Amino acid sequence: MLSPIQEYLKTLHARYASIMDGHVADYIPELSHADPRLFGICIATRDGHVYEVGDTQHSFTIQSVSKALAYGLALEDRGEEHVLARIGVEPSGEAFNAISLKVGTGAPFNPMINAGAIATCGQVLRKDGLSRIQRILGYLSGFAGRALDIDESIYRSESETGHRNRAIGWLLRNFDIIDEDPNDTLETYFQQCSIRVTCRDLAVMGATLANQGINPLTQKRAIAPEYVDNVLSVMATCGMYDWSGEWVYRVGLPAKSGVGGGILAVLPGQLGIGVFSPPLDMQGNSLRGIRVCTDLSHELALHMLNPAATPRSAVRLAYHGGEVVARRRLPPSAREKLRRYGARIQILALQGGLIFTTFEPVLRRAMQLADAGCLHIILDLRAVVSADAVSLRLIGELRGRLMKTGVRLVICQPGKLKTGLTEVGIPPSSIFATEDAALEVCEDTLLVEVTGVSWRPSGALPLEECALFSSCTPDDLSLLRRELTIRSYETGKFLIIAGEMADEMLVLLSGNVEVQIRGEGHNRQRVDVLTAGMTVGEMAFLDGSPRSADVVALDEVKCLVIPRPWFIALTETRPALKIALLNELTREISARLRQANVEIGALQRG
Amino acid sequence: MLSPIQEYLKTLHARYASIMDGHVADYIPELSHADPRLFGICIATRDGHVYEVGDTQHSFTIQSVSKALAYGLALEDRGEEHVLARIGVEPSGEAFNAISLKVGTGAPFNPMINAGAIATCGQVLRKDGLSRIQRILGYLSGFAGRALDIDESIYRSESETGHRNRAIGWLLRNFDIIDEDPNDTLETYFQQCSIRVTCRDLAVMGATLANQGINPLTQKRAIAPEYVDNVLSVMATCGMYDWSGEWVYRVGLPAKSGVGGGILAVLPGQLGIGVFSPPLDMQGNSLRGIRVCTDLSHELALHMLNPAATPRSAVRLAYHGGEVVARRRLPPSAREKLRRYGARIQILALQGGLIFTTFEPVLRRAMQLADAGCLHIILDLRAVVSADAVSLRLIGELRGRLMKTGVRLVICQPGKLKTGLTEVGIPPSSIFATEDAALEVCEDTLLVEVTGVSWRPSGALPLEECALFSSCTPDDLSLLRRELTIRSYETGKFLIIAGEMADEMLVLLSGNVEVQIRGEGHNRQRVDVLTAGMTVGEMAFLDGSPRSADVVALDEVKCLVIPRPWFIALTETRPALKIALLNELTREISARLRQANVEIGALQRG
Repeated sequence: MLSPIQEYLKTLHARYASIMDGHVADYIPELSHADPRLFGICIATRDGHVYEVGDTQHSFTIQSVSKALAYGLALEDRGEEHVLARIGVEPSGEAFNAISLKVGTGAPFNPMINAGAIATCGQVLRKDGLSRIQRILGYLSGFAGRALDIDESIYRSESETGHRNRAIGWLLRNFDIIDEDPNDTLETYFQQCSIRVTCRDLAVMGATLANQGINPLTQKRAIAPEYVDNVLSVMATCGMYDWSGEWVYRVGLPAKSGVGGGILAVLPGQLGIGVFSPPLDMQGNSLRGIRVCTDLSHELALHMLNPAATPRSAVRLAYHGGEVVARRRLPPSAREKLRRYGARIQILALQGGLIFTTFEPVLRRAMQLADAGCLHIILDLRAVVSADAVSLRLIGELRGRLMKTGVRLVICQPGKLKTGLTEVGIPPSSIFATEDAALEVCEDTLLVEVTGVSWRPSGALPLEECALFSSCTPDDLSLLRRELTIRSYETGKFLIIAGEMADEMLVLLSGNVEVQIRGEGHNRQRVDVLTAGMTVGEMAFLDGSPRSADVVALDEVKCLVIPRPWFIALTETRPALKIALLNELTREISARLRQANVEIGALQRG
Repeated sequence: MLSPIQEYLKTLHARYASIMDGHVADYIPELSHADPRLFGICIATRDGHVYEVGDTQHSFTIQSVSKALAYGLALEDRGEEHVLARIGVEPSGEAFNAISLKVGTGAPFNPMINAGAIATCGQVLRKDGLSRIQRILGYLSGFAGRALDIDESIYRSESETGHRNRAIGWLLRNFDIIDEDPNDTLETYFQQCSIRVTCRDLAVMGATLANQGINPLTQKRAIAPEYVDNVLSVMATCGMYDWSGEWVYRVGLPAKSGVGGGILAVLPGQLGIGVFSPPLDMQGNSLRGIRVCTDLSHELALHMLNPAATPRSAVRLAYHGGEVVARRRLPPSAREKLRRYGARIQILALQGGLIFTTFEPVLRRAMQLADAGCLHIILDLRAVVSADAVSLRLIGELRGRLMKTGVRLVICQPGKLKTGLTEVGIPPSSIFATEDAALEVCEDTLLVEVTGVSWRPSGALPLEECALFSSCTPDDLSLLRRELTIRSYETGKFLIIAGEMADEMLVLLSGNVEVQIRGEGHNRQRVDVLTAGMTVGEMAFLDGSPRSADVVALDEVKCLVIPRPWFIALTETRPALKIALLNELTREISARLRQANVEIGALQRG
């Protein structure tokens, strides 16, 4: 099916394809041969989907677009303060080839003008047996997600005619901004400008910057995360030369253009745009490129200062322990206690990226809950995709504060955030792999707080203490003892196997069992845990459907076996007992259905 | 409980409180009297929570901070192109009081330098019987969320000593940037600079800009949404004079400072910051203010180009019609069909703000589902908080494209987005108030597609076609007819009232009933709909608990009444019938519990 977005890009392409304003760069003959009709538009999303229309696979030289990316390499090689001492970050208000050097230091105003870009080349290290240009080529290839190469004839031409740039190189040498013979730096610069890219490459490079430096196609890191905002900053304030203020005002996307006809634009955190069209305007920017970026910004609402979709509270769902309980069977009395006191356990299910702005409301909410008397707060991080250092620190501080007022903060399903949480002081004993495990511990603690004793049965139960037999007469009980057998299972053995026919129902007399379903792959997911006194496998037994889950012994298990023929015969032989058993079964299943409906209500809220 | 964020701000305040560098502005005597120890820090969130520490309630004059906000008023009065023709948006690279006018036009470089700000004053209209300064004062009060006033002695002093600004005013008159005697404009400008604010006001003003122009305290609009990014753009590129590039690079927050000691900074879409401390640095910016903003940006990771939390796919949950069904009871055969074919109905539950970046993955997902053979796609907008024009347009286009391949797009719970959806071509018949209503229509259509007939019973059912009696013998049936009575209810009458004791259970013979619970306030929430052949009120009847919900007749209803004493007596009088009835009840409740567990699994996924 053709995407409406693809369709829109086709319309946008058609809007400008026939406009032949502007002039192809002609300062070297090789560039002047470019076909002015070539025109490509490409959008790459942060998750690696690429929309493209027109000549998006045509190769051309990257030219000044390379300045922004090579600046990232210089920062990685030398560190921010070292580079800032030699190359400024102020817009110069002058044209791209102006020799704008600061009075006194001789430092170029910014890395986007030629002087700054040549100085940047000079900061790139030779390393690991690689020359500067080899390292720059490798670095830019990381952004593109493929091995780039150099257009040798353009490079020779650039080198032969780059007199003004040579003058800049020697001036930089004069001010010790370049600290060796500048010729090697200059040749590196000419080669860097002659790297061949496509419109699609530019979009992917942009998406890499949008994606905190990880190439969305290869999933490999192209630039250290701490330098992404530096690169985007110089693109935002200096990327379009003396039109930068207006570019921010009208387009609002950090961008860089090149005289080869390329423009790379970035919506930070969201997407990358590549446009290719050789005819240039008076500032040396691709004429169709400027118009396409302006239209894209307006028509898709991409201005970086447009706050239409903004980080919100990370709370995805909030519910309490009276609504959602651990997947395990509790005796009716414990269930009733949880229904009544469960609000003392509060679960905040978080989502998205945790940063100051998304976590601050969580902090407020948690403190309100504590003030309102809750005793356990569970942060469920299952749907959290990232957490920055600030939010991790705040989680650690929140825990400390809550602890002072007797409230326990518990984390579940932290995934790869576990290490970070430990580092901010969350003890491993407060971190659980699943919400179930966290709930179980909080519920057990709460039940002891409320009742003074553990709800867990100790040792084997006599038949009359099993829920199913609670309304049996002494006569019924002796019949059960007489006619039914007791079976034992060792730890890890299967009491029930999914898919089999249900020809018996079991009553646990001692031990614990876990009900499991097979998830994706080979992992097994717990859906219930049952303890002594509870009935196992009654649903399939009653409605005649095959077993829907496995049941595994968690320890030594003893259970009473109720075979189907015996149960059927009961209608004739002892109807009152059968009615008593059916009554108990219905009551139990009804109670679970009520609980499930409460849980569905909580999960669908908000 | 003391918030860790409050605690952090106290630490930050203490870090700089004793540093006495810089000099209080002294170009007029009134400013030079300011106490250099005064120091306040304030953060206002987009939902109106204010963190403050230090002298946040102390009044001082707004000075140049007013330039950014008054620019918004000029844009609202005159429109973007009119203002841009008279005042540029390029950083000048010069100091705040430089007379930077463009060669030829005489237009000031930008509205943040004095020349541009005076020209901006000249663009503000006299209107509705109000003078310019009255309108500016009202406008800024909207940002602060309270009525601001003017410090008359500072104003007089500004006016008496503002010779350089008067020179600028006359130069602007000379170039026809100001088209009348400039004295009124100049007095307006001096008064504007003398408006009294607090540090807290600055933070709330910032939060208003962060919140798309709506003041988070008053919930009133302070600036038209289309001009918010214009104001933020000039703050970002020109707000800190000739230190703007470095400010973006190091701090990354659109900001404006004033010689009164105030700094207003904005993290677009997230929060506003106000800092107040009178001693200034060489550029005329509050010295402590610069340091506080730099630290806040680094320590709370607030750089606007830092993409740590970014808009993600709006899909909050995805499930299908075999997992989640409308809250109504279906006959077992229809339930089985839905279980098997329900995946042809796909529900995408969306969340957050819909913009290009968050909706684009939804579009892709929907097209994949259609390609995979689904026939109905429901977009549940319950948790969507906003949708921009771009995303609405894409929803409309998606519908058109899906329709061509025979797939129906249905929207539910659109809230205030309903009008916008209608405008992009979604017919009202495809928009539903609840997910239940949408699911119901899709399920009914799907069941007809699969079975060829409607599942709904037509007319009254004989007893033997009611589920509860499906295994009764002819003898049982005549007993039921003989011993039980039939009761009728008119439309709107209550069959069952929540809270009452359950002394009977009903079997619907004709008509439909709705099970409702009372939600917050007086609204009633549907939890189930039952049709002829189904049993009503059996759960409370069986377990002896009070009724948990009301049951209301949706049309003329006839039902068979099963009184508790009769049912109890059945154990003695006709045990086989009682066992048959209990078996059916257990089977039905078990089936619903299974369905509920599938639904919980779907809702807890992801």
